[in-house]
Amino acid sequence: MSEAIAWVGVDWGTSNLRAWVIGGDGEVTGQAESDQGMGKLAREQFPQALQDVLDRLALPEGKVDIVICGMAGARQGWLEAPYLEAPTDLASLGAGAVHPGMQDKRLNVSILPGVCQRVGGEDVMRGEETQLLGLASLSPGYTGLVCMPGTHSKWARLEGTRIEHFSTAMTGEMFALLKTQSVLRHSLGGPLEGPAQDEGFVAGARDGLDNPAALLGQLFTVRAASLLSGKTPDWCAGYLSGLLIGTEIAATLSDIGTDPVPLIGSAKLCGLYMRVLNMAGASGRLVDSTEVVLAGLKTARVHSLRT
Amino acid sequence: MSEAIAWVGVDWGTSNLRAWVIGGDGEVTGQAESDQGMGKLAREQFPQALQDVLDRLALPEGKVDIVICGMAGARQGWLEAPYLEAPTDLASLGAGAVHPGMQDKRLNVSILPGVCQRVGGEDVMRGEETQLLGLASLSPGYTGLVCMPGTHSKWARLEGTRIEHFSTAMTGEMFALLKTQSVLRHSLGGPLEGPAQDEGFVAGARDGLDNPAALLGQLFTVRAASLLSGKTPDWCAGYLSGLLIGTEIAATLSDIGTDPVPLIGSAKLCGLYMRVLNMAGASGRLVDSTEVVLAGLKTARVHSLRT
Repeated sequence: MSEAIAWVGVDWGTSNLRAWVIGGDGEVTGQAESDQGMGKLAREQFPQALQDVLDRLALPEGKVDIVICGMAGARQGWLEAPYLEAPTDLASLGAGAVHPGMQDKRLNVSILPGVCQRVGGEDVMRGEETQLLGLASLSPGYTGLVCMPGTHSKWARLEGTRIEHFSTAMTGEMFALLKTQSVLRHSLGGPLEGPAQDEGFVAGARDGLDNPAALLGQLFTVRAASLLSGKTPDWCAGYLSGLLIGTEIAATLSDIGTDPVPLIGSAKLCGLYMRVLNMAGASGRLVDSTEVVLAGLKTARVHSLRT
Repeated sequence: MSEAIAWVGVDWGTSNLRAWVIGGDGEVTGQAESDQGMGKLAREQFPQALQDVLDRLALPEGKVDIVICGMAGARQGWLEAPYLEAPTDLASLGAGAVHPGMQDKRLNVSILPGVCQRVGGEDVMRGEETQLLGLASLSPGYTGLVCMPGTHSKWARLEGTRIEHFSTAMTGEMFALLKTQSVLRHSLGGPLEGPAQDEGFVAGARDGLDNPAALLGQLFTVRAASLLSGKTPDWCAGYLSGLLIGTEIAATLSDIGTDPVPLIGSAKLCGLYMRVLNMAGASGRLVDSTEVVLAGLKTARVHSLRT
């Protein structure tokens, strides 16, 4: 392991990157963000994009370990970190790291691998595996489903630090596409709040939970409700959101046990998922996503460093 | 009824309109198309758009009946033709027609109503009801489901000329959105034909039929299959098409009887639906969409004319 005491953790996604300096006592002593996500960068631009962020942070003297999770390790990213294959023990995440060079030789960079699944539904993740490892560190021995709502929601089954199975639901992207690009856009609009939105959300979630196999048909209800019952744009937006989340959750219900499902993501979105879980007779608990990604980077770091 | 012998039938959709001159013996003696669909026209532009098409047709001397179905009767169309409400007898379609004026007083215009449904899932149709009436005229007494694949697929339960229930699946629009606007676009492309496309279609249809409640999760398989198994863009396009159609058909299977399901739409698309119906142990039969819309306009005309 490196002699560095302080180190830097980086969550490098498609659309942005976030970096934290972690002091010797494990506390965050500095942080910076950048919009230089993987999607905006050619391979040769990654080192400079990282350097730009590091330049805004107070780094310690001497060698500094930089531990990165997320899309920087994708094939179209900085340096491919080949997937671990589920089911697998995430404790070995660090051992699968790759190490791109930086001009500044003090910087010891590790990019963590993602996880793929070939049996039981082909699937991939990059970034979420580090959050899952962090959750396993913070809630030792937790066994059950974990839900990570977002553009592409991930559902993973954890047994301690092992990931047994996972799946991705394109719920968030579908909502955005339908709201802005489809025929339903004529019926939608306004902010996702207020009593009509709320009433629509509950109606949609109920329909999604009750009949998840009919999603393609229920979507058009949004348009019909606007034409026939004069439902307002905020009711319709709520209905669409509820319908999609209800449909997503219905597909996982048989795997949800009695423990609250940890929800990792934005607080607002996780609140909506928690509500639908409650409607389905299950429960959820909010987990701070920054906290788990930092815990995951820290745990992975131990095994990710070149000796 | 008007004294006109020849008359003109018009199918006026969102994106285009088609018109046919029908002679005294019921045969089509002329036809014309235009891209002046409802979506491109302000209310006051409809008469001229119709006149432009009529000018390209050889109309008989004297009074001419023009019978129109479709979006020209929508609230945002030429003149609103209030919906009939299902369940209802489509034989009364003509009686619900509205009559906008034309400058040329020889032209006796009727716009047929659409059908709405308020109980058992709010829904609307404009245009398809005329095809259904046509089907009922050409296959007297047919009782069972009818499928009209398209951007917004309609499934209707007919009992003779009665429409008992219907639903709309946004399958075609979803395919187009996902193929061109979503993260899946990176994995898709190429024409929808060839052996790899075919293999993908069957795999997708199987997944959709087997697990329709998991659509939101299965969609991402397209991306994963491209990343992990090197599936080609045409395989992925076939998979997505099969997955969506399989999911749509699975939701209706319990209502499909032993009679072949009449399929009204483009021959290519109906062929795909027929194939998935066969995979599900059901069957379909192709129905010529122009033939049924003409039969429907003809049947409705009898009751649609101002006396």
